[in-house]
Amino acid sequence: MEKIYATIITIGDELLIGQVVDTNSAWMAQELNKIGIPVLRRVAVGDLWNEIWDALDEESKKASIILITGGLGPTADDITKPLLCKYFGGNMIMHQPTLDHVTHIFEVILKRPMIERNRKQAEVPDNCKVLKNEKGTAPGMLFQKENKLFVSLPGVPHEMKWLMQQEVLPIIISIFKTNFIEHRTLLTYGIGESFLANRIAITEEALPSHIKLAYLPNYGMVRLRLTSSGTNKALVHSEMEYHFEALKKAVGTYLIADQDLTMEQIVANLLIDTKSTISTAESCTGGYMAHLLTSIPGASAFYKGSIVSYSNEIKEKVLKVPEEILIMQGAVSEATVIKMAEECLQLMNTDYSIAVSGIMGPDGGTNDKPVGTVWIAVAHKNEVKTLLIHLRYNRGRNISLTAMNALNFLRMLIVDNP
Amino acid sequence: MEKIYATIITIGDELLIGQVVDTNSAWMAQELNKIGIPVLRRVAVGDLWNEIWDALDEESKKASIILITGGLGPTADDITKPLLCKYFGGNMIMHQPTLDHVTHIFEVILKRPMIERNRKQAEVPDNCKVLKNEKGTAPGMLFQKENKLFVSLPGVPHEMKWLMQQEVLPIIISIFKTNFIEHRTLLTYGIGESFLANRIAITEEALPSHIKLAYLPNYGMVRLRLTSSGTNKALVHSEMEYHFEALKKAVGTYLIADQDLTMEQIVANLLIDTKSTISTAESCTGGYMAHLLTSIPGASAFYKGSIVSYSNEIKEKVLKVPEEILIMQGAVSEATVIKMAEECLQLMNTDYSIAVSGIMGPDGGTNDKPVGTVWIAVAHKNEVKTLLIHLRYNRGRNISLTAMNALNFLRMLIVDNP
Repeated sequence: MEKIYATIITIGDELLIGQVVDTNSAWMAQELNKIGIPVLRRVAVGDLWNEIWDALDEESKKASIILITGGLGPTADDITKPLLCKYFGGNMIMHQPTLDHVTHIFEVILKRPMIERNRKQAEVPDNCKVLKNEKGTAPGMLFQKENKLFVSLPGVPHEMKWLMQQEVLPIIISIFKTNFIEHRTLLTYGIGESFLANRIAITEEALPSHIKLAYLPNYGMVRLRLTSSGTNKALVHSEMEYHFEALKKAVGTYLIADQDLTMEQIVANLLIDTKSTISTAESCTGGYMAHLLTSIPGASAFYKGSIVSYSNEIKEKVLKVPEEILIMQGAVSEATVIKMAEECLQLMNTDYSIAVSGIMGPDGGTNDKPVGTVWIAVAHKNEVKTLLIHLRYNRGRNISLTAMNALNFLRMLIVDNP
Repeated sequence: MEKIYATIITIGDELLIGQVVDTNSAWMAQELNKIGIPVLRRVAVGDLWNEIWDALDEESKKASIILITGGLGPTADDITKPLLCKYFGGNMIMHQPTLDHVTHIFEVILKRPMIERNRKQAEVPDNCKVLKNEKGTAPGMLFQKENKLFVSLPGVPHEMKWLMQQEVLPIIISIFKTNFIEHRTLLTYGIGESFLANRIAITEEALPSHIKLAYLPNYGMVRLRLTSSGTNKALVHSEMEYHFEALKKAVGTYLIADQDLTMEQIVANLLIDTKSTISTAESCTGGYMAHLLTSIPGASAFYKGSIVSYSNEIKEKVLKVPEEILIMQGAVSEATVIKMAEECLQLMNTDYSIAVSGIMGPDGGTNDKPVGTVWIAVAHKNEVKTLLIHLRYNRGRNISLTAMNALNFLRMLIVDNP
C-alpha cells in the first residue's frame, strides 16, 4: 500500500511578517494524525499569486492530500479563490445555497445590511465541491485532480475547525485507506533532556525501527513521545503498550503523567480525584495560575478563587500580611508567601492554597533580590511548605515558569498527603 | 538590485503531529522584516533525512538566506547536525571553545556531571562558523554556499532569540544590502471586515501598487496594515506617512490605536497617561484580565490587583455581593457585576474597576442564560456602567472575547471621562 501523506499550506502575508502565530497548522496536524494521515510538511506563503501557485504544484508532488487555509476573507487582499479557480481550470459562479446562507447570517443573525463584498463570498469555482461553513460566511472548497485531494478552508480558527470536523475529516476517511498511527506520550519533571536520555538508553535501543521516540522539553518538563504505525491496529496497539510500559519503568520516579497533559490538568485531576479544593494568592504571576486552572472545563469543582495582590497594599489589606514583614523582609520573602498562603486558605476556605511572590523583570531587581527571585508557598491545613527559586529569563517566561514550579510544588504536596 | 529574500525551515516531528505550536518562525519573521529582509516562505519538516535535505535544496533555490531552527538538542532524535555537515561537505570535529562553554555550564552553573551526550553538543562541522550560544549548550552554525547564507539555530525559543539578536541579524546586515521595508498598523474596533473595507474603499484604491494593505481580524478588532518598501528610506517613509494618515481619516471613529498594540496595552497607556489605577473582579475570566494587564512590564504603575471570585462563596464573602442577589438574580446578572465592580473599587482603592460574570461553557448554560451570556460592569467613582454580551464560541475563545469586550468597555469609559 502506498503511503498517504498530507501537507498543509497556510496563506497570508501576516504569517510572513510574523504578525500572527499560526495555530491552525498544529491543530490540523493533530486531527490528521488521529485518523492515520501523517503530515509530511507545512508551508506558509504570502498573498502572492506565483508563490501560492508554486506551492500547490510542489506540495501536490509530495502528498496526496493538500489542505489550504487562509486567504478567503471578504477583503481585497485575498487572491486565493480566483487562483484556485484558475489552477483547477474552472469558472467562478454564484453558489445559491451559500448566498442564502450568507444572506441569512446578515439579515437574521447580524441584523446588518449585506454589501457586495459579502455577496462575493458566495461565488465559487464551478469545479469544486462546496463545503458549507455554518460558522461564517466563507465556504470551504474541495477539488480533486490526478488522484490528489485539495481542500481550501477559511483561516479563522473556529471556522476552519468546524469545517474540518464536520466535512473534511469524514471525506478523507471515506476516500483514503490509511495506516493506523498511534502516539503515546509521558511527562517527566525535574530531569534534564540529556540525563533522561542516558537513563532510558537501553529501553530506547530496544525499540523496533518503526517506533520512534521523541524528546520534547518544555518549561522544566520533558515529554517523551512514542509513535508507531502499521496496517493492523491491534498489533500496533499491543506492541505500543509493551514499549510504553517499558519506557515508564525506565523513567521511574521522574514520571509525573502517562498522558500528554498540561501541569495544570495534572494538578486538577489530583484535586478532583481527592475531592479537594484549591485557591491561589498571586503577586508576581498576576492571575496566571488562576487563568491556567480556570481554563479547564468544570474548574468550579476544584477551584474557588484567587487574590491577585499585585500591590503591597492588597497584600496587607486583603491577605493580612503584617506591615512589619513587608517592611523588614520585603514583599518577596518567605515570611510574606507563608502569610499569603495561610490567609488565602482561610479566606477562600479551601483544602490547599498556593502563594507566590517574586520579581519577574525587566525592572525591580536589587543586589539582594535580582530579577528572577521567587518565593513559593503551598499550604494544606496546618502545614505550609516553601520553595525559593531563581529564574533567568524574560518576563513572560519567568511568569510561566513560576506558575509551573508552583503547580508542581503543590502536586508534590498532594501526592505526599494522600 | 536583486531582491534578497529569507526562508525559514523549522525541523521537528513535534511540529507535524501538532504537539507544539511554532512561535519561533513568527518572531524570526518580525526581526527579519525590521532589517528589511522579507520572508518568502516558511517550511516545517520532520526529523527525516530526505525531507530536511530536500528542503535545503528547494528553499535555497528561492531565497538567499535560509534560517533553520530545531533538531539540535542532545538527544537521539536529532539528525540535523550530521546532515548539515554532509550537505556542506565537511567533517565533524570537536570545537574546543564550545566544549569549554558546555563544561562550564555543567560544572559551574548546573553543578551536575557532564555526560557523553553533552560533550557531543560541542562537535560541529569543520566548515561552519560556530555561533556561541550563551543561553544553552547547542551552538548555532553558519554556512555559506554559492552566495547563499545558511544558519542553523537551536529550537529552544530563548536560545534562538538570543543568537538571532547577538549574532545572526548583525551578520545578515553586514553581508546583504537590503531594501528598506516599512509597516504601519492601525487598530479598529466595532466594525466588521467587509464594512470596514467599504468604508475605506476610496483610500485603498488610491494606494500605489508597491504599498499593500492587509486586513487582520482578531477578537472583535480588525487591524489594518500598510506595507511599503524601497531603496530610499526617506521616500518610503514620507509616502507611508501620507497614506497612513489618509487611512486613519477614512477609518474615523472606529480607530482605537495608530500602532499595533494589544487591547490591554491600549488600556494601560490610557491609565498611565491619566495617572489612574485599576483593579479587576473576575468570575468567568478567572484571572485572565489580571494576567493580560500584569504581563505588561511596569504594570504596578497602574494595576493593583484582582479578586478572582470563581465560586459564589467568594463573591459573597470577599466582594460583598448580597446573598439575595445571588439567589434571586443569579451570579450572572447585572446586579451581581455592579456589586462586584463597586466593592472592588472600594477594596482595592483604585480609580477604575472592571467586573465580569458569565457562562463560558461547555457546561453551565440554562434556557434563560445560555453558554456565552456575560455581564460586564466598569466603575469609576460614583458611576457604574454595564454591558450584556452574548458569545457563541468555545471556552477559551469565550474567555478571551470577554476580556477584550470588558477592556474595550473600560477604554470607552476612560476616553469619555478625561
